[in-house]
Amino acid sequence: MAASKTTSGRCFEDFRLGEEIRHAPPRTVTVGDAALYLALTGSRFALTSADGFARALGFARAPLDDLLVFHIVFGRTVPDISLNAVANLGYAAGRFGAPVYPGDTLTARSRVIGLKESSNRETGVVYVRSTGTNQDGAEVVDYVRWVLVRKRDAAAPAPAVTLPELPAAVAAGELTLPTGLDFSRYDTAAAGSPYCWEDYAVGERIDHVDGMTIEEACHMSAARLYQNNARVHFNEHAERSGRFGRRIVYGGHVISLARALSANGLANACRIAAINGGRHVNPSFAGDTVYAWSELLDKAELPERRDVGALRLRLVALKDRPAAGFPGLGAEGKPDPSLLLDFDYWVLMPRRG
Amino acid sequence: MAASKTTSGRCFEDFRLGEEIRHAPPRTVTVGDAALYLALTGSRFALTSADGFARALGFARAPLDDLLVFHIVFGRTVPDISLNAVANLGYAAGRFGAPVYPGDTLTARSRVIGLKESSNRETGVVYVRSTGTNQDGAEVVDYVRWVLVRKRDAAAPAPAVTLPELPAAVAAGELTLPTGLDFSRYDTAAAGSPYCWEDYAVGERIDHVDGMTIEEACHMSAARLYQNNARVHFNEHAERSGRFGRRIVYGGHVISLARALSANGLANACRIAAINGGRHVNPSFAGDTVYAWSELLDKAELPERRDVGALRLRLVALKDRPAAGFPGLGAEGKPDPSLLLDFDYWVLMPRRG
Amino acid sequence: MAASKTTSGRCFEDFRLGEEIRHAPPRTVTVGDAALYLALTGSRFALTSADGFARALGFARAPLDDLLVFHIVFGRTVPDISLNAVANLGYAAGRFGAPVYPGDTLTARSRVIGLKESSNRETGVVYVRSTGTNQDGAEVVDYVRWVLVRKRDAAAPAPAVTLPELPAAVAAGELTLPTGLDFSRYDTAAAGSPYCWEDYAVGERIDHVDGMTIEEACHMSAARLYQNNARVHFNEHAERSGRFGRRIVYGGHVISLARALSANGLANACRIAAINGGRHVNPSFAGDTVYAWSELLDKAELPERRDVGALRLRLVALKDRPAAGFPGLGAEGKPDPSLLLDFDYWVLMPRRG
Repeated sequence: MAASKTTSGRCFEDFRLGEEIRHAPPRTVTVGDAALYLALTGSRFALTSADGFARALGFARAPLDDLLVFHIVFGRTVPDISLNAVANLGYAAGRFGAPVYPGDTLTARSRVIGLKESSNRETGVVYVRSTGTNQDGAEVVDYVRWVLVRKRDAAAPAPAVTLPELPAAVAAGELTLPTGLDFSRYDTAAAGSPYCWEDYAVGERIDHVDGMTIEEACHMSAARLYQNNARVHFNEHAERSGRFGRRIVYGGHVISLARALSANGLANACRIAAINGGRHVNPSFAGDTVYAWSELLDKAELPERRDVGALRLRLVALKDRPAAGFPGLGAEGKPDPSLLLDFDYWVLMPRRG
Repeated sequence: MAASKTTSGRCFEDFRLGEEIRHAPPRTVTVGDAALYLALTGSRFALTSADGFARALGFARAPLDDLLVFHIVFGRTVPDISLNAVANLGYAAGRFGAPVYPGDTLTARSRVIGLKESSNRETGVVYVRSTGTNQDGAEVVDYVRWVLVRKRDAAAPAPAVTLPELPAAVAAGELTLPTGLDFSRYDTAAAGSPYCWEDYAVGERIDHVDGMTIEEACHMSAARLYQNNARVHFNEHAERSGRFGRRIVYGGHVISLARALSANGLANACRIAAINGGRHVNPSFAGDTVYAWSELLDKAELPERRDVGALRLRLVALKDRPAAGFPGLGAEGKPDPSLLLDFDYWVLMPRRG
Repeated sequence: MAASKTTSGRCFEDFRLGEEIRHAPPRTVTVGDAALYLALTGSRFALTSADGFARALGFARAPLDDLLVFHIVFGRTVPDISLNAVANLGYAAGRFGAPVYPGDTLTARSRVIGLKESSNRETGVVYVRSTGTNQDGAEVVDYVRWVLVRKRDAAAPAPAVTLPELPAAVAAGELTLPTGLDFSRYDTAAAGSPYCWEDYAVGERIDHVDGMTIEEACHMSAARLYQNNARVHFNEHAERSGRFGRRIVYGGHVISLARALSANGLANACRIAAINGGRHVNPSFAGDTVYAWSELLDKAELPERRDVGALRLRLVALKDRPAAGFPGLGAEGKPDPSLLLDFDYWVLMPRRG
């Protein structure tokens, strides 16, 4: 009887195409979360740092960092989606909606949009679209991820293969700006960089210079703050005999560290509009020092806006290897062992008007 | 002159029966404390996670975690009660009163209710009843603990032996519910578990599955947040030549980790009503991985309530040993070295109505 | 093109006498920052712990710790002033102004007030006066610091030597009290110590007894909270081949730990009025245990005030050496290797009236 009351996570055969899963628990976010996010990442973006800066752009006050919102929504999905995940395979088609402010309450749900048993019949890939919603029902973030999940029983019958159609990137025309925003009053001096949308060229690469070393206490505190309870992040006793011999850093923490480092060179890239894709190429562990570089993949105007434009960026994170020379993305063969993350996203940046 | 201005803590002969000690400083609790508690424990109980969930039950908003309240009150008592404690021997007769919300200010006082010199005359046991109160004078938590305290002078005369009468457990009839609460609107789906009071049977044991490894930075940050300044938690330089050769984790941190782990299996056990007793069987250190299991000791209806009932639970924490098989409570002989905590408490849980 | 968008910090020849630098980004401080400051330092001063205690003295609510304010202002200056600093040489003439409350937004600016090329022509000393201001334009803290900064090109012409006149200490007559404060209602019992201004004698030394061990996660989280991005604190990979072979603790964290320890003996020294000077005598690293002692250098009445007076204190921090005997300040020769900090400040303390 006891075992039945605990969540040991779903196996591949527990997912049904089209099924909608409501995740627990809801979460009221606060200035406490925002302060912890600063303390864990060192982010220096002005928009999330200061109420007055945010209000000048039409926000109600400083919103929570977009990635903090993503992690909190993601954290809710873990017990239902990825507790038995062998691997997080990817993200796609992520879009950010309403800004999230201290006091908002976030809930999360996921729809199963694809299933594909592996050829060895011991695992399968589950595709879900996960959506985070605020207390007014407005979507705050919405994204697809797919995970490789164990089967309980290799002999269990396989569902029909269904693969969702996923865009290589969110189309520029689909990028949305929260209503009421006006970047014409963006204060570049307050943000710490004069560089606006016009100043970035497709193909340009930026070495973000600095490095940040990960401690066990820091990545665990981050994942706990998100109420992400994936076991591999927390249990040294079990992981010692696991695949890597130690705890694994939540991949989202690496994204956050790389994004925080990227303020040096992209200080005005203040709002993430979309996540096109992301791969955790290698796992990260305590003791790793994260470096980052960015490549400008595309630029887009937003319809009828002269105050703000979008940049499509590749954010690359490396471990124990400075980003000078932009290493890590060999076109062929095995990826460089220093490569942690290859993350593709759209960001909003003020224009000179 | 200098030494007299610093607190070096009371010795056994400094306590007088019936004396009331007012502890310092008062503490205003905030959403910052709540966020840190999440980041340090990973707790997933819905009641303390989301304002709307709490309001549906009649709370003003998400209250602070009961154990966070306990630790903050306990932290205030340390400089006056246990700075010279050789050991924390036990807790009993603890009851939680008014819910604590961000913005409340907590103060603490203790009354000396028992004294017993040890036979070797070098130490003595001090029993205190400690009470935490909010800014309106309402009691938020009230508990007895007893500690073994050094004497300054073994030859000092012994006080008369006075031992308080302590119940083996808080009687079910004494459990109180904060006024205005109505669990009939409890949303089990939002909380992440369908299991209500009716679903648990006396004698049932639950393996909480997961494990959480303790880092020095985490247990120290927790104890500092509580303004608990017991030296053994913080001073590696001194503890290296101390009893255990290293810093000792605040026992309350182990209680919090075990309680957070217990959400897996007891997600609706949302409000602690009473602490019947607790023993820190072995000390805990950084690097330990905490596992937990629970045993249902008793069940009780609350007078005139169909919406909520009480469960008496034993919460057992182990180090570096999974809880499968419910190890650690050998009836005879020395306790299992993996056993950290044996904690007996009443918790409130929604009924099906 | 890429390199030009990142801040690699100013070199000595980039500073112009009289130049004013506006630092980025602005920062709204919250109860989240206050809670983290408690969790990272364990401070027990009543004024910053409880709203009601603060209101009784005329504060709007519990203000942020003065050193937290200092660190947040300091953190803003780092990218512009000290990213290429070889050493932080000193502080002087620091004064605290308006109390800072949760919700306030702080901005920082610096004026270059002195320049002196080193005789080897490879570095130079830059003196700046840095000022933190709240959203109403009121100054919250204002201080001078000087740093040894690398030259980009040793052959670059040297500016005229200009050295600011700096007082050995802020004059007692210049100490100001935030308007509206009344310490006659100061509750010493709530603060945990009966000792008032009258009880301290010039020359008195106080051993603060306790020790606090520094963890990498803690000092990095503190510096990140302040958005201080000086590389030496965060990048183990680079620092392994740096001057000390490992990350260096932000000196301000040591000041905060020593100040928090000093509550044991100086619990009523609740508000820092001025920073006369400070030297980080030796660097500090994770694993160090910080001890502290204080020496009363001077006492001063405040004009027309019977409720509050000022104490000038030397706060000495040591590593891995208890403060008994007040070691570390040899008058001659090399400073004791255990000596971390020699900090000279004015603090306000209630009088008996």
